[in-house]
Amino acid sequence: MTPRAELIADTAIALLAERGMRGLTHRAVDEAAGLPPGSTSNLARTRAALLELTLTRMTELEFARIAAIGAPETAPDLDALAAMMAEFTHLQLTAGRVATVARYELALEATRRPELRKVYDEAGRSYRRMAADLLAAAGSADPVRHGHQLVAFLDGLLFDAIAGAGETFGRDDLRRGIREVLAGMLGR
Amino acid sequence: MTPRAELIADTAIALLAERGMRGLTHRAVDEAAGLPPGSTSNLARTRAALLELTLTRMTELEFARIAAIGAPETAPDLDALAAMMAEFTHLQLTAGRVATVARYELALEATRRPELRKVYDEAGRSYRRMAADLLAAAGSADPVRHGHQLVAFLDGLLFDAIAGAGETFGRDDLRRGIREVLAGMLGR
Repeated sequence: MTPRAELIADTAIALLAERGMRGLTHRAVDEAAGLPPGSTSNLARTRAALLELTLTRMTELEFARIAAIGAPETAPDLDALAAMMAEFTHLQLTAGRVATVARYELALEATRRPELRKVYDEAGRSYRRMAADLLAAAGSADPVRHGHQLVAFLDGLLFDAIAGAGETFGRDDLRRGIREVLAGMLGR
Repeated sequence: MTPRAELIADTAIALLAERGMRGLTHRAVDEAAGLPPGSTSNLARTRAALLELTLTRMTELEFARIAAIGAPETAPDLDALAAMMAEFTHLQLTAGRVATVARYELALEATRRPELRKVYDEAGRSYRRMAADLLAAAGSADPVRHGHQLVAFLDGLLFDAIAGAGETFGRDDLRRGIREVLAGMLGR
């Protein structure tokens, strides 16, 4: 992605979070990014192209946050797994907050746009695979379902804190809750 | 709520799910409901009032779905609790699917509208209280956090199936996953 494409996508992420799907237009991106009129249209002609560019950038940023935490190298114990996942969730709630609101906007929009659905689901499958691999290494008897339901739990904690009625859990309560869920899945 | 208010709110729910926040306007509700122009404005003058009416109706319908399942009368065992919650989640994914997409739209919009946030959070607190009461009766050592994290898990399963990258779990896999989470929380 070129620096200009990144600027446009990052601006779209911020607009989506701040104003919702109604507030995201090519013109609003030009204005908020301080670019000449038409810049966003030149890069992403249609609304669908702009949404797809935004989602692709968002996924890049999320994977960078995951990579920054680092996956454990050997089969991790429950405490280490729970701490790692709590750290990621906490990061998404803080550094990743704006991107996470924008991601939920795009997830809902994807219920109406098959081409966006495809991009969203591809990223989603990567998360589920990562979670399934971690759980298999930790001894899960049903790693695909467990990986999927664990991602749903983490996403539920995020949605709840960001857009739902929940309070925002601190790292310790996140870690406790995630550890309990892992223990239940792994039968420990 | 009068029958006309219900019709308007139900139409707004359907429009939100089908077209997103951008597709919900007073005029679109009049048209889709087959009402004379101005009917929706007469009932809910501002956009904020229309959103609030819609959310209030949605909450009514959700509580009716919960009441239809019925809460257990005595301290339930894990299997009964898990079966009950899987049944509710399955209902939200089927009969409640359209309302659930609309609820997520309103949850995101509530990040930008304090008055809508208030209505959303009030309903959300009711769910959390119900979950905390059930978990306390089942022997939870930390029912408030557990209730909150259990609601986040169920909501994560819903979001994942409806708007996320997840497959839709059938009743059995829902029940299995929920039972594991309950077992982890209750240390069984």
